[in-house]
Parts: sequence; structure tokens; C-alpha cells
Amino acid sequence: VREVLNDRQKELMTNAPSGGIAQLRNAIAGHLKAFRNMEVDPARIIVGAGTEYLYSLLIQLLGFDQVYAIEDPGYHKLAKIYEKHNVKYCYIPMDASGVSVKALEKSRASVAHISPSHHFPTGIVMPISRRYELLGWASKSEERYIIEDDYDSEFRMNGKILPSMLDIDLSGKVIYMNTFHKTLSSTVRISYMILPQKLMEKFYRELSFYSCTVSNFEQYTLAKFIEDGYFEKHINRMRNYYHGKRDLLLETIYHSKLKDYITIYEEDAGLHFIMEIKTELSDEMFCKLALKQGVNIAPLSRFYAQGTGQEAHKFIINYSALKEERMEEAIRILYEIAR
Amino acid sequence: VREVLNDRQKELMTNAPSGGIAQLRNAIAGHLKAFRNMEVDPARIIVGAGTEYLYSLLIQLLGFDQVYAIEDPGYHKLAKIYEKHNVKYCYIPMDASGVSVKALEKSRASVAHISPSHHFPTGIVMPISRRYELLGWASKSEERYIIEDDYDSEFRMNGKILPSMLDIDLSGKVIYMNTFHKTLSSTVRISYMILPQKLMEKFYRELSFYSCTVSNFEQYTLAKFIEDGYFEKHINRMRNYYHGKRDLLLETIYHSKLKDYITIYEEDAGLHFIMEIKTELSDEMFCKLALKQGVNIAPLSRFYAQGTGQEAHKFIINYSALKEERMEEAIRILYEIAR
Repeated sequence: VREVLNDRQKELMTNAPSGGIAQLRNAIAGHLKAFRNMEVDPARIIVGAGTEYLYSLLIQLLGFDQVYAIEDPGYHKLAKIYEKHNVKYCYIPMDASGVSVKALEKSRASVAHISPSHHFPTGIVMPISRRYELLGWASKSEERYIIEDDYDSEFRMNGKILPSMLDIDLSGKVIYMNTFHKTLSSTVRISYMILPQKLMEKFYRELSFYSCTVSNFEQYTLAKFIEDGYFEKHINRMRNYYHGKRDLLLETIYHSKLKDYITIYEEDAGLHFIMEIKTELSDEMFCKLALKQGVNIAPLSRFYAQGTGQEAHKFIINYSALKEERMEEAIRILYEIAR
Repeated sequence: VREVLNDRQKELMTNAPSGGIAQLRNAIAGHLKAFRNMEVDPARIIVGAGTEYLYSLLIQLLGFDQVYAIEDPGYHKLAKIYEKHNVKYCYIPMDASGVSVKALEKSRASVAHISPSHHFPTGIVMPISRRYELLGWASKSEERYIIEDDYDSEFRMNGKILPSMLDIDLSGKVIYMNTFHKTLSSTVRISYMILPQKLMEKFYRELSFYSCTVSNFEQYTLAKFIEDGYFEKHINRMRNYYHGKRDLLLETIYHSKLKDYITIYEEDAGLHFIMEIKTELSDEMFCKLALKQGVNIAPLSRFYAQGTGQEAHKFIINYSALKEERMEEAIRILYEIAR
């Protein structure tokens, strides 16, 4: 069969290295250089079928005996993944600058999972000083690592984008994660991680018996999409689209009766912001009443393992799926519930 | 954005259920009915990015505290996967009918991984009596399960194909696994498993927070490929192609001087057969000398954790990549080494 194939077809049928095909890894490195000014050796990039899968690989790489730290508040899914893999994890509280280094020091955690460029759900952008403190924490022990989830840095709207932790890390302690779920579609299951040199070598020594989980033709297609500039064009277009949407939403809110009941936080990062609403209702009741009328918002408190009370009456406004013609009505509904 | 999409595009951007899109699962169920006469509820099919990934899901589903039994000889990769997931496994010796039920009973294993339709590397097809014995073993305890790997049943050449264990299992003890790596290309990372009703419910209760690891467009493409009959046509074409190749290879061997030095086993199942060669050389030395001249064969002994000696001087002849015009030369090389 192979004899009659052309080079392109042969390429499609040749097993990819465990970390992904070279062309895609080169394209990703090129994108990171152009878009984020990051210098990355493509050999350190590992491509996989979604971030969740890469976490599973990371647990196998770092060890089932490590304790994993998760930001509180944060993604529930992370805790579930660690739980289902039978590994220990703990929650680390956040302050205004992000995860608390003091609390991290006190914990038994050796691997800290953080999202410095845009924390979900608070929207906090971790200042550079805290990033260095975290690197300091990681450098104190051989087994300590930081997993930097940079999942929606592409959508940051105003203000300077800070360098990634990977970029300022000279000690080989940062594992960088990113995904195409957010920028392309959640139904495109391609993510990647960038391993420190030492872990990359360990990966190829111990885990490269695994086949890459993304099919070749999908990898080649994405590589070409990035190489030919479509990916950057797409991101810019998306960002402009969401930027316009956010501006319209904020304007509509500030011109509505709702404005006297609310304070807005962290509106510059990503596709959601935080809105504090003056209300006597419980957060869950507020959301329930809103949902009854078709407005789907989530209380910040839902994402805390151990709340402090400060998160009360703060809601996550994700506007990526909100239709412009429905904005006024949605705001009126929230106002009717709040007043 | 979504407003201007047509239905097909919306479908492509709508998150798949954790087990895969319905259209693909229906197509797979239809294929299994037509090709293997299996009656499968599509709801019990779980699609994932490769068999290795599905094993990882299964460990999370069945538990990290179970002991997994692996056939000896068998795939090295399985042991590696279990090892890397920090779970216990043990090897169960094979007799002429497949894995030994007596040895399985004696072991602490609760989950037995077997490939009854075509064992790798021996090529053994497990007789129906042994299949029932194994089901008997599994039925004795709540936590016991059989993982039936049916990875290349599509390529069986002569003789009646036996029903799958899933098909004769009335106790909900068989987890069926199959993949498109073998039938399409190893670079198409799509596999599926069929869970017993109870495990399927557990999967959706505990693990459906995971996104399906195969991208939507790949799932829809494969679904259409199967639905429109191309998959079955492809399998038939492949089978004929390999059938012809095998016949030519056997004929060439039996007309060569090598014929006095060899015995051939299990030539009807799958894409390889076993050739016993009379030689004074060690198996590894024999393979090394062959490889030096460009003939890549593997000794059976390489796939044993604990050999019995009976496997000595038996070699795996995988002819799927062998070019027809090279056959005579390859046989001459083996003859020169053997004589």
C-alpha cells in the first residue's frame, strides 16, 4: 500500500513522536514567539488531546506520591481529576495578588497549579513580584514544580500583558500549559504543555511509549493554520469581537437602573468579569431567580472550597455567549431581582 | 458568532457527550451488528483518543486498588501503563487455549485483560469453552471484570470467527475494547470501549466531567465513513490484500530451502504468524543477524515476562509491511542464518 502514496500521504500515516509532530510543535513555538515573545525549544512542547489528558500525563510524570496544590477559588475540575487519579491535593487560599505563598509554604504540596495570567473565576492577574515569590518557593526543593495554566491569555484586552512564568523561570521549575479549546473551539481537543528540560528528558525516558493522542491529520491541519497566519488573525478577530461586546455590555449596564446596585471588577482579562450586586438574597437564590428568566450567571462562592465571606454577592458575568440584542433585557431582569 | 452558523457548523462546535457524539456511537453499533453480529446499545459505547487513553479511564473507573492481570506473553505496553498509573498488576501464564483460569484463580487479580479473538503474539484464538470458564471466574465476585481486547478481529482470514466474549456475557462482566488504529491507520487516534450497563452508569456518574478526547470533526468524519459503507469496504479490501500477501509469503517459504528448517503456527489470525526455526543460535542473536541484513523479526521470547522454554526459537513474522518483491531475498537471508 505504502509504495503508491505520495510524501504528504506517507507523512499522514507515519507515527508521530509521543510529544506530537515536529511541524506542529515548531508552529506553536513560532506563535508563542510572535504573540507572547516567548523563546521555547519546540522539543520541550508536548501535544495532547486536551488539557485534562495532559494533567493525567503530568501526574504520571511527577508522581502519584506528590501533593498537588489547587487555587481556592478555582476550577472544580482540577480537584476531580486529582481525586480520580487517587492522588492527594489541597486547596491554597488566594489574596488580592493570587495564591498565597505563605499558605503554600505551610501546606504539604510540592506541585502548585496556578493561572497567573488570568485567574478563574476571580480574574486576578498575578503581579510580577508574586510570580518571583512562587519561583522562590519552587526552587527550595528538588521535587517542587509550578504548573502555569495560561489558558486564556490570548483574550486579555487592555493593559500590558505580563511575561509568563515560564519566561522568567531560569531554574527549570515551570510547566507551561495552554490549549486550543478556548481560542478555536472546545470541540477541538488539542492542548500542549512545555516541560522544563529535565522533565522533558524524563518524559521521553519514561512515558514516550504512549502514542500521541492527537491524530496526525489534525496536527498537520493545525500546524498549517498557525504557520499561514490564520490563527493569529482569528485570535485578533475574536478579541475585537469580544472587546466590542464587553464595551457594549458595560455601557448598557452603566446606563441602566442596575448601575446603583453594582460594582464591577477585573473587566480587562478574559471573557468574563466579576459583578458585585447589592442584594439581600442568598447568592444561589439570586442565580436561581435569574435562571428562571433565562439569565445564567454563577456566584463566585460556588468556586470556593473554603470561602472567606468576602466572595458573597459577587457574580461571574460570562458574556461570550450573550447575544447583543438580549443585553438590555438581561440587565433589566437582574435589576428586578436586586431592587 | 453562533447566530450565523448553519446546523452542521453548530454541531461541530457543540460539546460532545463525554462518551462521544451519538452519530459515531450509532455508526459503531451498526458496524458491530453487520460485521460481528453483535447487539450493542450505543449508549454503552465510550469513544476516546486511543486505547492507551481508555485504559487510563478504566483504571479510574475500576479503581487504583484493583490488581490487573496481564497475559504472559503479551503486550509490554499494558504492564507499562499499569506501572505508570501506580496500580498493581500480575502476569498470568497462557496454555494452548489462552490464559490459564487456574492461575488466574490463584492470583490476587480482579480485572483480567485478555485478547481472545487473536492473542498477541502467539496468535491463539481462545476456544469457546475457555471463554465461558473465564466468565465463570468473573462472576464469582462483584469487583471482577474482564477487559476483552478485540483489536484485530477484523483481519481474521480463514475459519469461522467466534462470538466475542461481550456477546456471550449475560452477567455484565465484559468490557469490550476495539480501535481504529489497526483498521485505518495508527495515526488515527480513535478507539472505543463498550461498558456493561452498571459500569456505564458509574462512568456517567463519576467520570463524565471529562471532555471526550476526540475532536468533533474527526468523530463526525469517521461516523460518516462508517455509515456510508466505506469502512466495511476498506476492511474487506485490506483483508484481501493481506490474505494475498500471506499466501504468497507462505508459498515462497514452502518453495524455498528454508522450508526444512521451519514450522509455521497460527497463520489464520491477524497480520502475523509464528515461525519456529531450527537453529543453534540464541533467539536474540538470530534476530540481530537478520536485522543486520534488513530483515526485522522478533523472537516470541521477547514478549514473555516468565518464559517456559517452549517459546524458544519461535519468531513473529509480521508481514504487513513486507514488500512482495523483497520476500524471496528475506527468506534467503533467514535460510543463510539458520543453516
